[in-house]
Amino acid sequence: MIIEKYLEEYEIGASRMTAGRTITEADIVLHAGQTGDFYPHHVDAQWCATQPFKQRIAHGTLVFSVGIGMTTGVMNPRGMSYGYDRLRFIKPVFIGDTVRVRTTVKETRPHKTPSHGMLVELVEILNQNDQVVIACEHLTIMERKPAES
Amino acid sequence: MIIEKYLEEYEIGASRMTAGRTITEADIVLHAGQTGDFYPHHVDAQWCATQPFKQRIAHGTLVFSVGIGMTTGVMNPRGMSYGYDRLRFIKPVFIGDTVRVRTTVKETRPHKTPSHGMLVELVEILNQNDQVVIACEHLTIMERKPAES
Amino acid sequence: MIIEKYLEEYEIGASRMTAGRTITEADIVLHAGQTGDFYPHHVDAQWCATQPFKQRIAHGTLVFSVGIGMTTGVMNPRGMSYGYDRLRFIKPVFIGDTVRVRTTVKETRPHKTPSHGMLVELVEILNQNDQVVIACEHLTIMERKPAES
Amino acid sequence: MIIEKYLEEYEIGASRMTAGRTITEADIVLHAGQTGDFYPHHVDAQWCATQPFKQRIAHGTLVFSVGIGMTTGVMNPRGMSYGYDRLRFIKPVFIGDTVRVRTTVKETRPHKTPSHGMLVELVEILNQNDQVVIACEHLTIMERKPAES
Amino acid sequence: MIIEKYLEEYEIGASRMTAGRTITEADIVLHAGQTGDFYPHHVDAQWCATQPFKQRIAHGTLVFSVGIGMTTGVMNPRGMSYGYDRLRFIKPVFIGDTVRVRTTVKETRPHKTPSHGMLVELVEILNQNDQVVIACEHLTIMERKPAES
Amino acid sequence: MIIEKYLEEYEIGASRMTAGRTITEADIVLHAGQTGDFYPHHVDAQWCATQPFKQRIAHGTLVFSVGIGMTTGVMNPRGMSYGYDRLRFIKPVFIGDTVRVRTTVKETRPHKTPSHGMLVELVEILNQNDQVVIACEHLTIMERKPAES
Repeated sequence: MIIEKYLEEYEIGASRMTAGRTITEADIVLHAGQTGDFYPHHVDAQWCATQPFKQRIAHGTLVFSVGIGMTTGVMNPRGMSYGYDRLRFIKPVFIGDTVRVRTTVKETRPHKTPSHGMLVELVEILNQNDQVVIACEHLTIMERKPAES
Repeated sequence: MIIEKYLEEYEIGASRMTAGRTITEADIVLHAGQTGDFYPHHVDAQWCATQPFKQRIAHGTLVFSVGIGMTTGVMNPRGMSYGYDRLRFIKPVFIGDTVRVRTTVKETRPHKTPSHGMLVELVEILNQNDQVVIACEHLTIMERKPAES
Repeated sequence: MIIEKYLEEYEIGASRMTAGRTITEADIVLHAGQTGDFYPHHVDAQWCATQPFKQRIAHGTLVFSVGIGMTTGVMNPRGMSYGYDRLRFIKPVFIGDTVRVRTTVKETRPHKTPSHGMLVELVEILNQNDQVVIACEHLTIMERKPAES
Repeated sequence: MIIEKYLEEYEIGASRMTAGRTITEADIVLHAGQTGDFYPHHVDAQWCATQPFKQRIAHGTLVFSVGIGMTTGVMNPRGMSYGYDRLRFIKPVFIGDTVRVRTTVKETRPHKTPSHGMLVELVEILNQNDQVVIACEHLTIMERKPAES
Repeated sequence: MIIEKYLEEYEIGASRMTAGRTITEADIVLHAGQTGDFYPHHVDAQWCATQPFKQRIAHGTLVFSVGIGMTTGVMNPRGMSYGYDRLRFIKPVFIGDTVRVRTTVKETRPHKTPSHGMLVELVEILNQNDQVVIACEHLTIMERKPAES
Repeated sequence: MIIEKYLEEYEIGASRMTAGRTITEADIVLHAGQTGDFYPHHVDAQWCATQPFKQRIAHGTLVFSVGIGMTTGVMNPRGMSYGYDRLRFIKPVFIGDTVRVRTTVKETRPHKTPSHGMLVELVEILNQNDQVVIACEHLTIMERKPAES
């Protein structure tokens, strides 16, 4: 779906939440295969059983990618993704955990191009216990509303 | 492979480079499937042909995940990944581009736990023309070398 | 997204169109792998070159499944999918074709449970030349609007 | 394997049964990824636990595609798949269920081209309790046996 | 399909050929992901262009696994796969090559259990130019025909 | 990583061991899909429950391919893989088993090209109980150390 929105139309503090998705063993297998990251934390259940967390954990890049993917659906042609700040892996995600994503408009910042500004949204990936497992700030370069003449 | 290294053993400015990997149409299909991000920029060749870049582009999270995965291989049990700062999508990656990853030790910072410090490494994903397509700073909490008694 | 809608709220003749998606060689490889259908029409390029269509064609169940998947996004908790009628494979889909899906409300029918009715929607999967490649009728059992007291 | 058979050589009432296949969590993950259908019925175990069926259910298009794929193996160059009628999702398929497919020759019908006819086969996908979970009629346009001169 | 056959019923020199299958870039991507073998010979098109073969080559284990998989379809409950001898990688397989598999009964050998013997079949994987790309000998422990009393 | 080594530099009896990897249901599903081998031993849990081993077993080609993949990481440009001898499937691998691979230099043999020789390494894939599940001999054609002048 396409929804056009200018920078000024984002309300600081407004937040939205996605539906949920369960992280499966298959997701970890596929992500190891896509990235080549076969660290034992993700693919060796026997070794993990000897570690503090006792079981395999999902790759940080898997949960981050899935979480960002879950926020898609609505395209705003007035914005262009610029990057992420303060991406933090706060808690491990285990096989069978169910994640949802909350996106909150945090602030807007000026941009060197006066017709545009930077939209900063806090993206929080939550598990089934409402604990934040990953947080980051998503930066989008957005058009400002043209002055009406 | 396991190589134990304390914070003090990382030399500022030292860098290492991975082998290369070609980003394929299959990678994009698999990443769309893993994340649920089916935005037309990634999966609709016909629409892309009408856009400035003329062709499908790889998901930012795909290239980031693959790039981070390419840096794996050596585990240092003295460190724990903390997160990423300043993750920036600088240039698009197209089907058939070949990426490599350069990691450079940027700086070390104090940590609230005196026995540890923060290692900051600049991670740059390059394409076949040596252009940086993604850059970010990887933060790792590392043990300091114990004082010899 | 959840949008509650009763049977009476569907307008006969109303139609909606999805974004597009390019069917890739990787999709065919994955679908052969998921279903076990390795017929040479789908996986043997050499043999296909000797046939009238000259190239590999996507599985009918692949294009049908992808097309139905493309129509998802909005859930209506007042309806439950009942089945499909008149599923027809009208034109072959080749690697590189881009499909979109048009859904048109065709009719409503009574249901043995008086509080419900059957919604019939025509689902047409189109290629990049606006040719219908697959058509079918989707049947959904929908709640009728409760009489206001 | 190739077995040539004309329309007249199909015996009404004859049926054949495939071997079995267990539907796994990985199948659902892969099908969600192939189709983009991430409805919570299929991918959110936490939400499903609050619903009448208590657990994730396989996509209808997954079980249909796998079932049709299971019937492949023998190619009859005298026939061409035309479509499906009365495709019905009768019972949910859960992770761990094992399906088999029974195909029964139901009837033959005339075709506008006199040298051909329509073969109608009832396709029933059964679970491990011999319950039909999906049923449909498969229509194939078949050559009639040429009159011997 | 199940076909029961005793050791004596295999005729030395008899051979059978499978249908064909095109090895795709997606197959290589999936096999790299399944095995973790991301050697540049398979995944770095830029580096391969500097090598004698000029292009990516399929993993030996990919072509071997696909070839063995292509010979499946008929199960003989009287035999049990024992292993492979003289597995040789004779020619590279490139993206787009189409392989078929020829299996020839080579010999039978005694087994320490007198009621059984070893069946040796030559398995040859051919490309579209009828060149053998992989050859091996498949060993199966087979029941001998029980003496009729 | 690239490590150049001549035939003479391999020490008979030297061995190395990989990290571990758990074989998952998803691996079996993906391997069935890649190879087309949907034998009930691998994909029909219900039938397997009636057999001596009681559960699904991993494809021999899956465990072999994964095991070989686990030994990758270091490339020696002085050697070229020639093939495998005495590949034996010794014990079944079940879903959830964790495998590691031990490679032992077994012997060197002359080669028709005097500047080269054949390196024979014993490859043993072990499960979590240190049982060898697959063994084979890997043959590599290696350059001999050039005589110093």
